[in-house]
Formats: sequence, structure tokens, C-alpha cells
Amino acid sequence: MNPKTPSQSLAILTDIVLPSETNPIGNMFGGELLARMDRAASISARRHSMRIVATVSVNHVDFNKMIPLGSVVTIEAKVSRAFKSSMEIYLDVWIEDRESGVRSKSNEAIYTFVAVDETGRPVSVPELVPETKLEKLRFEGALRRKQLSLVLAGKMKPGEASELKALFIED
Amino acid sequence: MNPKTPSQSLAILTDIVLPSETNPIGNMFGGELLARMDRAASISARRHSMRIVATVSVNHVDFNKMIPLGSVVTIEAKVSRAFKSSMEIYLDVWIEDRESGVRSKSNEAIYTFVAVDETGRPVSVPELVPETKLEKLRFEGALRRKQLSLVLAGKMKPGEASELKALFIED
Amino acid sequence: MNPKTPSQSLAILTDIVLPSETNPIGNMFGGELLARMDRAASISARRHSMRIVATVSVNHVDFNKMIPLGSVVTIEAKVSRAFKSSMEIYLDVWIEDRESGVRSKSNEAIYTFVAVDETGRPVSVPELVPETKLEKLRFEGALRRKQLSLVLAGKMKPGEASELKALFIED
Amino acid sequence: MNPKTPSQSLAILTDIVLPSETNPIGNMFGGELLARMDRAASISARRHSMRIVATVSVNHVDFNKMIPLGSVVTIEAKVSRAFKSSMEIYLDVWIEDRESGVRSKSNEAIYTFVAVDETGRPVSVPELVPETKLEKLRFEGALRRKQLSLVLAGKMKPGEASELKALFIED
Amino acid sequence: MNPKTPSQSLAILTDIVLPSETNPIGNMFGGELLARMDRAASISARRHSMRIVATVSVNHVDFNKMIPLGSVVTIEAKVSRAFKSSMEIYLDVWIEDRESGVRSKSNEAIYTFVAVDETGRPVSVPELVPETKLEKLRFEGALRRKQLSLVLAGKMKPGEASELKALFIED
Amino acid sequence: MNPKTPSQSLAILTDIVLPSETNPIGNMFGGELLARMDRAASISARRHSMRIVATVSVNHVDFNKMIPLGSVVTIEAKVSRAFKSSMEIYLDVWIEDRESGVRSKSNEAIYTFVAVDETGRPVSVPELVPETKLEKLRFEGALRRKQLSLVLAGKMKPGEASELKALFIED
Repeated sequence: MNPKTPSQSLAILTDIVLPSETNPIGNMFGGELLARMDRAASISARRHSMRIVATVSVNHVDFNKMIPLGSVVTIEAKVSRAFKSSMEIYLDVWIEDRESGVRSKSNEAIYTFVAVDETGRPVSVPELVPETKLEKLRFEGALRRKQLSLVLAGKMKPGEASELKALFIED
Repeated sequence: MNPKTPSQSLAILTDIVLPSETNPIGNMFGGELLARMDRAASISARRHSMRIVATVSVNHVDFNKMIPLGSVVTIEAKVSRAFKSSMEIYLDVWIEDRESGVRSKSNEAIYTFVAVDETGRPVSVPELVPETKLEKLRFEGALRRKQLSLVLAGKMKPGEASELKALFIED
Repeated sequence: MNPKTPSQSLAILTDIVLPSETNPIGNMFGGELLARMDRAASISARRHSMRIVATVSVNHVDFNKMIPLGSVVTIEAKVSRAFKSSMEIYLDVWIEDRESGVRSKSNEAIYTFVAVDETGRPVSVPELVPETKLEKLRFEGALRRKQLSLVLAGKMKPGEASELKALFIED
Repeated sequence: MNPKTPSQSLAILTDIVLPSETNPIGNMFGGELLARMDRAASISARRHSMRIVATVSVNHVDFNKMIPLGSVVTIEAKVSRAFKSSMEIYLDVWIEDRESGVRSKSNEAIYTFVAVDETGRPVSVPELVPETKLEKLRFEGALRRKQLSLVLAGKMKPGEASELKALFIED
Repeated sequence: MNPKTPSQSLAILTDIVLPSETNPIGNMFGGELLARMDRAASISARRHSMRIVATVSVNHVDFNKMIPLGSVVTIEAKVSRAFKSSMEIYLDVWIEDRESGVRSKSNEAIYTFVAVDETGRPVSVPELVPETKLEKLRFEGALRRKQLSLVLAGKMKPGEASELKALFIED
Repeated sequence: MNPKTPSQSLAILTDIVLPSETNPIGNMFGGELLARMDRAASISARRHSMRIVATVSVNHVDFNKMIPLGSVVTIEAKVSRAFKSSMEIYLDVWIEDRESGVRSKSNEAIYTFVAVDETGRPVSVPELVPETKLEKLRFEGALRRKQLSLVLAGKMKPGEASELKALFIED
């Protein structure tokens, strides 16, 4: 399998916010955004692996900004690091001002997917080679996040999480 | 208002097909695709006009290919011609083969939107300047389609539809 | 197969507009109406052909009037012309005033469906014999619309579209 | 207020059953049918009263027959009796065989609605005058059902429910 | 099969009311509540019988109180009486005041389910042994309601409905 | 404000998985589960604070087990720690075997909510006093997770995250 770049797995999901997708105070319902991101991330993981993919975990999602009814919401998903059979997907969510056209970041999120064969068994995925500065930064952070995820799940001892440990000791 | 190019209004809506969006024989439900295209076209019209926009008509939509459950569907919408306050939006719909990554055209559609102010009155929109060969072709066709639409609606006599008339006489 | 009349394929879908079916400015979302019309038209095509049917194209839909939240919307669909295996469906959409009970036309639309067998191959459908004056008018227009559709799709040369040509030359 | 006939409040909601409206064993989900009947009944109550209406109770719904995915379901709702400000709505639900066109009854249901003014206070509705034999039968049964409903809700003593009492004593 | 108590089949469905679940005047749409109750009742019937279950009828549902957008709605469903293969489910619906935390009853409803095997044939269910005073009251009422249901459906003569008859004569 | 216990904020959302809530391979769609958990968590946060609440972040969600169509899914949400105006909500998700009635853990998730006043400004919430052993464990972990969240968001230097640091050094 040839390595791939993040831009090869870019998935763009631009959509509006209708009343059926809002919460009682008229902003986009959090669950709806989580669902849209899951859809975008699954497309990105599929484009990288060319395999059937399944959500493994939602690692972190911040809701910094309200997204009002009628907004145009753009979700951009790219694989940020590939492990043996799992992939970390980094998502950036943008909303844009109708009159000025200026767009601003509303959310970031990190999802993890696994590639499986028809019987559901994990299969290998291509290596990811980051290109831009931001892609490299996220690629490096992915290892720490993976260790963290293993530590939180009790599948790795904190002392073995070398990348994470360094973070707290070196600082 | 400065003229704009079609690429300035490009809206990309990539999404998957879930069971809740299928018809009884397991393909994407036609009404669901019509609704997604309406959403994508409205974003494109809004990006061109920077105004509130409303659907005026669906001019033509072909359903040539079944889109099976689980497909990745990419809708690309761009303004193909701007009139005084209305805009024709041309949409291309693609599905991609999971294993090869090859994508193929599944549908084309043409929607018309109007830009309005807060009170619902039509307002002027920027001129559209096509750039690519395909954009120019669609730009030219748009006038014939507009005349056709007026003729079909009984708002223009066939004899006055100069562009359309030429098409049938010159041939 | 015995010929059928348009009234034999009449499908009536009366329903209200709930908040989950509106756009950000509180009117019925265009995509929702397109989807409801697709459902009504498929029932009409099925009643005429007694076969499995699939949407071939949406030929023309006008959105002349806003349909506010809470409206009672009545869609009436009837086959307007039957070809070898395809059927043109003409839809009239009405809304009614709650206090006076008076109903007014809000939209017209034209969809085309094809009848298929279990393997998806087109099959013959009964001939349509229009009865009322309006049904006859729509029956005659259907041939011009079919030629137009073929011309726009590049499957017929404008010079061969006799019905259409006459329209522009005779006028 | 002039009296009205049941046919003046007839509401027909014909629609298909899509996968998103089924239960885990592939038949129409009961809750979906209950919701569609609520929509049809509210239109019927509104047509009779020309007022804002609200559901008061669902008196009885039988689910005798499975309605499989892809069925064409026709709901016919008519006011069966009008009281001071409330109306009993009788609904008949039909499914039709695609190949023979024969339709068969799948459900019956009885809903009660009340007419209210803008402030939510009950207002008078026109009297109902049944015409057909079936309409007369349902009209008479409505009084017994209303007494029954009051008895079950503890708002009427069984001994005061003259119509009901007669039913059990005379038999 | 060992007898079971009502609390063994208790199903609690607490959820909020989002805009997509409201009617045009901003309260929870009646059909949505009917659907949620159907889901809760089916879980209760399944927990009692440990079988596949299907809705037989909705016996009675009162809508006494508007449930406004944003409300927290708690549905509590319990089997109130088991017959040979059918079960009566009694549902209590509560809404709670956000500031005081006080909860108040908004609805009661009675649904009937049947337990079936894989081929759809009715199968026996465990006996129900009520414990609390309210459970005993509902258990006793269930027989009258079953007779009533049979009488209304024309499957039992009023004179044979001993429990019901007594109610009207003794009073 | 009096302190509260986790059981005072317990929210139980038991529901089934219908076809409209599945992914293309027939299991519960990940986005649907994320949305249901958001709904349950918001109820829990509201019961603890008696305030309007908004999602701040989804800290961690694991998808260990497929949840097949037709499953009964029980989400139990409780506040695990209260900070000044934010609350960590811990969610346990269970599915149950229909025949044996045995239930097994399918997911855990951690969401964070903030309490706000009518103008959207954060307000204080009651202190949380854990009671059971598990509640105490989660209460202690919450501080580490909060620090981690601040570190990942670049709002706290790793060296200042005393709780986290200890974890890696002491080990």
C-alpha cells in the first residue's frame, strides 16, 4: 500500500441549519452536529483506507460557539494519522457571515475510525504522510492522544506512555 | 457590485446514504436527493448574492442512475448565470466506488433562486463571468432555459423567445 | 392492457406543515415539498401501471407562493400521458385558508416515472385516455415536453423535435 | 353556524411507507401510523370547525394487519359527531394490492379534537348532520363513546351514562 | 413460566422536546408523543414476555396538558395485566418544572401488545402479579377494558361482558 | 445552594433502535447514539443545576460494541463532578438480551455542560457530593480530565496540571 497525504482523504460537507436541526433556544442542536461530523469523518476514513470503516471513538469535541438557525456550516475532515488499522480524523467546522462572506472557526473535533473487512476484522491501512505545517503538528499530537486514550481506557499504564510522560516531565 | 466567477459560489455537500434516506428497494430516495440539492443550491446562491435567497423553480433533474444504500454522494453546486435578481444554479452529483476511488456522474440538475431583502422584495445580484469552457457553455444555455421557462409558464410568447427559436430554425 | 383515464391514477396527499418541515424563515422547506410530490407522483404512476416504478426526472417545478408553517397542503397527482414504459405525472398543489375554507393553487409540477419489472427492466404501461379539457391540454403538452427533455439531454436533434419546432415556427 | 355534513370534513392522506418509517421487522412502525392519523384527523377537525384545533384524546385504535414496507397507505378522516366544542373524528385506513389494485381495510381509529380560539379557550363548532348509513351508525355510537370516555376518566358516574347503561341492560 | 411483578417490566424513557418534535403552536406534536409511548410500551411488553412483541391496540390516551418546547418528558410504562398472549401496558407521562424540579402528570395512556414467536404466532406470556395499591386497581380495571374492547370490536355481546355489565347495573 | 448527590441528577433514557436510526450495515448509527447521549446528558445537567444548560464538550466516547437493529438501549446519565458553573456528566450505555434479560455495557461517555442564565452568562451550580464507590472514583478522575481538557485546548501549561503530572511521575 502506497502512503497517502491528508488532502487525499479530505471530505467537505457544507450544509445549512434548518429548524428541524435546532435546540429549544434556536441554535444548531449539539447532537445534530455530532452526527454530521460522524458522517464526514467516516467518508474521510473510507477515502484513506478504501475499506469499510466504523467509528471507534470520539476523542474530543469542543462547542465554543453557538451556531444559529439558518447558518451555513462547513465541515472539513482529513485523516491526521494512520496507525495499523485505525485512523485519527481531525475535523474543522466553519460558519460564514452571510453579508461579508467571512468565515470563522466554530468547532474542532477528533474522531477515530477502524478499517475492517467484510467479516468485521480489522485490516491494514496505508501510512499517512503529512504535508503542511498544521498537518505535521496534528500528526505528532495524534500519538500522544492515542496513548492518552489507551491510558484512560486502562489498556496502557501511564508509565509506558512515553510521549505523554515526556510532555509532563519536560515541561 | 463587482462581477463574480462561478468558482466563488461553489458549494460542496459530500454525504453518505443511510437507511433512513432510502426507498423500498434500497436505493437513495429521490425526494431525499432533491432536498439535498435544494440545500446545496441555496448555499451557492447565497454565496454569490450575499443575500437571503429563495427557490424559484427546479428546472430539470435527471435520475439516470440508482444510488445504493451506503454510497458516498458528492453534490457540487455553482451559479451558472445571474440575471437581474435571479440566479441559475447548476448541480453535478457524483458517487464514488469505494475500492477503486473512481467517481462517476450520477445526476445533473438545474435550480433557480431569487435574492430578496428582509421584506421579501427581489434585489439585484452581481453579474456572473464564466471562466472554464464548461462554465461558458452552461452560461449560454441558461438564457435559452430562462426563455423556455417563461414560455412554459405562459409569460412569454414562443415567437419572442429569440434564443430558443433560433435553436429550432437554424438546425 | 386496457387504456386508463387520468382519474384512475389520482393520488391525493393532504398533510399539514410542522416546524420540522420549515426553512429558516418559517415557510415550508422547498426540499420537503419536492419530496412529498415525489411520493404522491410515485403512487399515481403505480396506480396507472400496477408495476414497480422509479423516478426518471423532475421536469419542472415552480415555487410561486410561500407556504407558511401550519398550512394544510393538498397535493393532487395524476398521470397526464403514458408513453411506452414511461409516464408523465402532473401535480397540482393547493393550500387552503383556515377561516374561509377557500383554497388556492400554490404550485404545479411535472415528474416523469418509468415502470419496471422485478429485475429493473422497463415494461409497457397502459395507454392514457384524457377526459376533461384540462387533461387533454396536458396530454398534448406532454409530447412537446418529452421532445424538449430529449433535446436538452442531447438524445434528440432539435430538427427532429417536430412538435416543438412547430411551436416556434408557427407562432 | 350552519350544520355540516361529514363529507365536508373529509381529509385524504395517501402516502407510501419508506424504510425510515418501519419497525425492526420491516413493517410500518406503529408510532408512525399513529402520527399520520393525528395529522389527518387534525385537518378534518379544522375543516369542520374552521378553527385552531388540538388533540383531546385517542379513543381507540386497532392494529389488525401488518403494513409492509413499500405499501401505499390511504387514511380517510371524517368528523363523525360534533359536540359543543369537541369533535369525534373517525378514521379508516386502507392498503392496496399493487398488482390487482384491490384495497383492503387495515385499521380503524377514533380521535377526539377540540376547537379553540387564539387564546386557547374552547369555542363552539357547527353541528354535524350524518348522511350515509355508516355515518349515521358512527354518529349514534359517538355518544356512547363520549359517555364511556367520561366514565373512564371518572368525570361521569356509570349510572348517569344513560346510553351506555341501556346497552348493557337491554341486551 | 414464573409470574412477574409490574416493576419487572418498568421502562423509563426520559427525553426533551426539540423544535423538530413540536406542532405549529410550539407544543409537543401529539403524534410524536404517541410514537414515543409506543416505543416505551413495546420495551415494557418485551421485558415482561422476553418475546418479540407487536402493538395490538391503543386503548385510550388523554391529552390534558400542553407540553411546551424544551420540556423534559418522562414516560413510565409498566405491564398492568397479562392475558393469555396479550399484555395491557399502562403509561404515565410526566413533565417537570425546571426551576422547582416539581413534576406533574401530563398524560395517561393504555396500549395493548401481543407476544409472538418468530413466525408471528401468539405465544403464552407469564402471569402478572400486581403489588402496589395502584397496580392492583389497574389490574382489575384491565378486565373491564378488555371486555369493552371486545364489545366495541363486535367480538363479544354486551350481555356476556359480565364485568362491564356489573358496573352499570350495580351502580 | 445545597450540595447534591449524583442520584439526584440521574436521567434514564430507554429506547429501541428503529431502521431509521441504523447505519448501512444494520447497526445503530454512531451519530444517533451521540445525539441521544447529548439529550440524556442535558437532562442530567438541568436536574443538577435547575438552570438552562448548554453542551461545552464531548470529552470521550468509546464505541466498543455494535448495537444491532431492534436493540433496547438504556442510557443512564449522572453528574460526576460540578465545578464553578460547569458539570461533567458520566454516561453508561447498556443493551439487553431479549431472551435472557441479561444486560451488558455497550458504551461509556463523558460530556461537559455549562449552566447559564437567560442572557447566556455562566452561573454557579450546586456542589456535587459523590456517594457510591464508583461515583467517588469518577469524581476524582474528573479533575484530571478537566486539566487534560485545558492542556489540550492550550489554556493550561502541562506543568501546572498538578493532578495529571502526578499520574505520570508517580507511576
